[in-house]
Amino acid sequence: MKELPIHIQLQPESGKTLYEQIYEYIRDEIRAGRLFRNEKLPSARFLAEYLQVSRTTVDMAYDQLVLEGYVEAKPRRGYFVSAYEELYAIDGPKGETAQPHRQTDRQETRYDFSPNAIDMRFFPYATWKKITKNILVDANSKLFSLGEPQGDLQLRTTICRYLHGSRGVNCEPEQIIIGAGNDYLLLLLEKILGRHVPVAMENPTYVRAYRIFRSCAYPVRLIPVDESGMRVDRLRRTDARVAYVMPSHQYPTGVSMPIGRRMELLRWASEAEDRYLIEDDYDSEFRYRGKPLPSLQASDADGRVVYIGTFSKAIAPAIRVSYMVLPYPLLARYREECGFYSSTVSRIDQSILNEFIRGGYFERYLNKMRKRYREKHDLLLSALKPFERDFHISGSDAGLHVLLTDRRGRAEDELARMAADVDVKVYKMSDFRMQEESAENRKTAPEGTAREKTTLILGYGGLTTEEIREGVAGLQDAWKPQSFL
Amino acid sequence: MKELPIHIQLQPESGKTLYEQIYEYIRDEIRAGRLFRNEKLPSARFLAEYLQVSRTTVDMAYDQLVLEGYVEAKPRRGYFVSAYEELYAIDGPKGETAQPHRQTDRQETRYDFSPNAIDMRFFPYATWKKITKNILVDANSKLFSLGEPQGDLQLRTTICRYLHGSRGVNCEPEQIIIGAGNDYLLLLLEKILGRHVPVAMENPTYVRAYRIFRSCAYPVRLIPVDESGMRVDRLRRTDARVAYVMPSHQYPTGVSMPIGRRMELLRWASEAEDRYLIEDDYDSEFRYRGKPLPSLQASDADGRVVYIGTFSKAIAPAIRVSYMVLPYPLLARYREECGFYSSTVSRIDQSILNEFIRGGYFERYLNKMRKRYREKHDLLLSALKPFERDFHISGSDAGLHVLLTDRRGRAEDELARMAADVDVKVYKMSDFRMQEESAENRKTAPEGTAREKTTLILGYGGLTTEEIREGVAGLQDAWKPQSFL
Repeated sequence: MKELPIHIQLQPESGKTLYEQIYEYIRDEIRAGRLFRNEKLPSARFLAEYLQVSRTTVDMAYDQLVLEGYVEAKPRRGYFVSAYEELYAIDGPKGETAQPHRQTDRQETRYDFSPNAIDMRFFPYATWKKITKNILVDANSKLFSLGEPQGDLQLRTTICRYLHGSRGVNCEPEQIIIGAGNDYLLLLLEKILGRHVPVAMENPTYVRAYRIFRSCAYPVRLIPVDESGMRVDRLRRTDARVAYVMPSHQYPTGVSMPIGRRMELLRWASEAEDRYLIEDDYDSEFRYRGKPLPSLQASDADGRVVYIGTFSKAIAPAIRVSYMVLPYPLLARYREECGFYSSTVSRIDQSILNEFIRGGYFERYLNKMRKRYREKHDLLLSALKPFERDFHISGSDAGLHVLLTDRRGRAEDELARMAADVDVKVYKMSDFRMQEESAENRKTAPEGTAREKTTLILGYGGLTTEEIREGVAGLQDAWKPQSFL
Repeated sequence: MKELPIHIQLQPESGKTLYEQIYEYIRDEIRAGRLFRNEKLPSARFLAEYLQVSRTTVDMAYDQLVLEGYVEAKPRRGYFVSAYEELYAIDGPKGETAQPHRQTDRQETRYDFSPNAIDMRFFPYATWKKITKNILVDANSKLFSLGEPQGDLQLRTTICRYLHGSRGVNCEPEQIIIGAGNDYLLLLLEKILGRHVPVAMENPTYVRAYRIFRSCAYPVRLIPVDESGMRVDRLRRTDARVAYVMPSHQYPTGVSMPIGRRMELLRWASEAEDRYLIEDDYDSEFRYRGKPLPSLQASDADGRVVYIGTFSKAIAPAIRVSYMVLPYPLLARYREECGFYSSTVSRIDQSILNEFIRGGYFERYLNKMRKRYREKHDLLLSALKPFERDFHISGSDAGLHVLLTDRRGRAEDELARMAADVDVKVYKMSDFRMQEESAENRKTAPEGTAREKTTLILGYGGLTTEEIREGVAGLQDAWKPQSFL
């Protein structure tokens, strides 16, 4: 470690705490460019000795710098000055949507067409704060006690009503389990469904769910997707007992499953004891063309569908509230096997969310966001017009991304690399294609082995209209056919 | 269902919504005693038809009544008027600590010596609200984004420092995983430790942890406890790879593990590859006699201890924040197997907790509660003086409960029943004694098979000093030796 020019003159009489003085000194050095990006800072122990202050004082200063994004803590390596672009992002408007200082090792791309990003700039922070304040003003100690394992009845009733109205889901509040995120609910579901249950998934699919099933040691059967979604004829050839599907808007293909295929799936589930469908309705809120089909659960006469949804996407990622609707046979098993697991969501957070929905704020926010996302979607599609000769554009009537399928026989890697050269990040369909078993070693299909078409994914949720326009312009330049000659 | 005298005259012009009118009518009928406790209310559908209003309107009225505790919703059975004592508890001061309307089917006992209850009457609600308000005032959208899977570095750093100072735990913030409750952390730990790992537990033990290990399909090896805690000689005779222990204050025996036994345990763990100890330090905050021993983790030179703790007990059950400190080999496995699981605690909640600790409020609250609990503890022990002829009293120098071991050969069931007759609930040690395997069918040892001594558990955390005094007086009456003649 090179010794740094940390010449802080601590002034005990200044009225500021020592920790503030250290923090401000380093912050100002970074802001002024006197400490360079990626430069290693002295260890807290060293600095404490050097300045003759307690270790805690230095730790607090460093923590504050980390919290504000000036400094990064790299596990087992120490503290480093953050890269300049990231600092800019923290101060500037981009900081509102991005989390630049979180992924310490990843290089930021200027135009990131991530299919997962959402736009938080229009979130009604003021309303949320007001509701929180009101809830706390009225709060008595009951709100600070541990709630029911399934979640508070009040919120479950609200969700029940919301799901019925917006998605046609038929359920009672008692069938709803509220949990801190989908991942947690899938862990619970493992306990309910049992061990080593072969699970069928669409391929390509949602990689996080795939990894969770693998981490639960579930054998995963990968089922191809056609223009109607999961191919039930292929599903029938497997030993799968459970099928995980996204009928509203398959991720990432964007396929919306028509009623015929849904009926086929439900028939498959009903034909044997203990077969179930997991419906992940992850972004149905953002359908903006035509009337959305109700959920698969709405057509389930036989109690075979587990319906899962989340508020992390429709409200804010920090809102760690997801829900699952269990059919009665599984509800009985839940109560037996998992009824004793404590709730993972605080009652205070449940009350705030409940009020946000009941007060009509959620509906209002969704309407606003649908409009914003439709604007971005329309802008993206019109900007992509010139691409239509070289690409088939699809998957665009719901959700927050579109697909570009290459007509010219180019490879995904090549197109993604060319995009990266102009500071644009696009996503490769091959990253979402899982490979039959031996999946521990390799999570995605090897490039080029499949006869699958070259397809790129462009998400637009997290970008501004300006960024979409500039990013697409960059792509147009990068992917000019002559570049391949 | 008997038809109820619901003669609500809805007044559209009254300025109140229909739902408010229905809610107020039923509430007032209950308050006035015109609707009797446990009486079934008409179904929402029936009432909606009867009053010619929408089903939603009635649902909202019922929800409100349920929320406020006037009415209970019993799954698949309908709505019932709550019992009167419960209503009293909601309005009166007892409502501050009890959650009477939660457990719908359990009869409340007047003096419940639950070893799990805590006293929330002194919780600094105002401070918590103020911190929340300040956090939200300063909040930008970053706080609403999804945080790091392990939890925010700021909070992990705070916990790290707190654990080092108070419990001698040696760790870096990167070793800490923050999760929504211990149950969730144990689920994660299952993924980290692997499947079908034989786990040794003290017997008797913490039943919830036992059930979680069983629900994870871990074979559980039950190890007897002597006056120093888990018997390592017996542990050695098993195939256990992991041992779950509570060295500070074994639950429920109250045994504090001396340093010699700790060293024996650590030696056991170090003797083979991949052996680990799980240290559940669930209530070490409430030790008030003598200086507490540091944690077992503090003596762990070899990276064999997983340290688990929670804020649900020391702060409030609604605070769904627990933490676990992983030794480096397990940390590497966590990152590989579970690094993709999203955090289960919102960043907002993490920030509030962080500020509560950093601002010194936590320490102040703990000091106050230690004092309160010591008062109750001393009162209980002095009230129990007359019992010393018939009972050996133990386990009293930490935590929130004491043990009464009978000297006269009476059965636990008999003593508990006699206590119940005078409206006092005491807890039977046999309920915490697990039975070797076949545990799916029966969770506790059959009464009387073991030569174990009759022992009753009296927790005092949730009772007021008045209630302790009255409850013990009741017991003295109920357990008078002549009752047995």
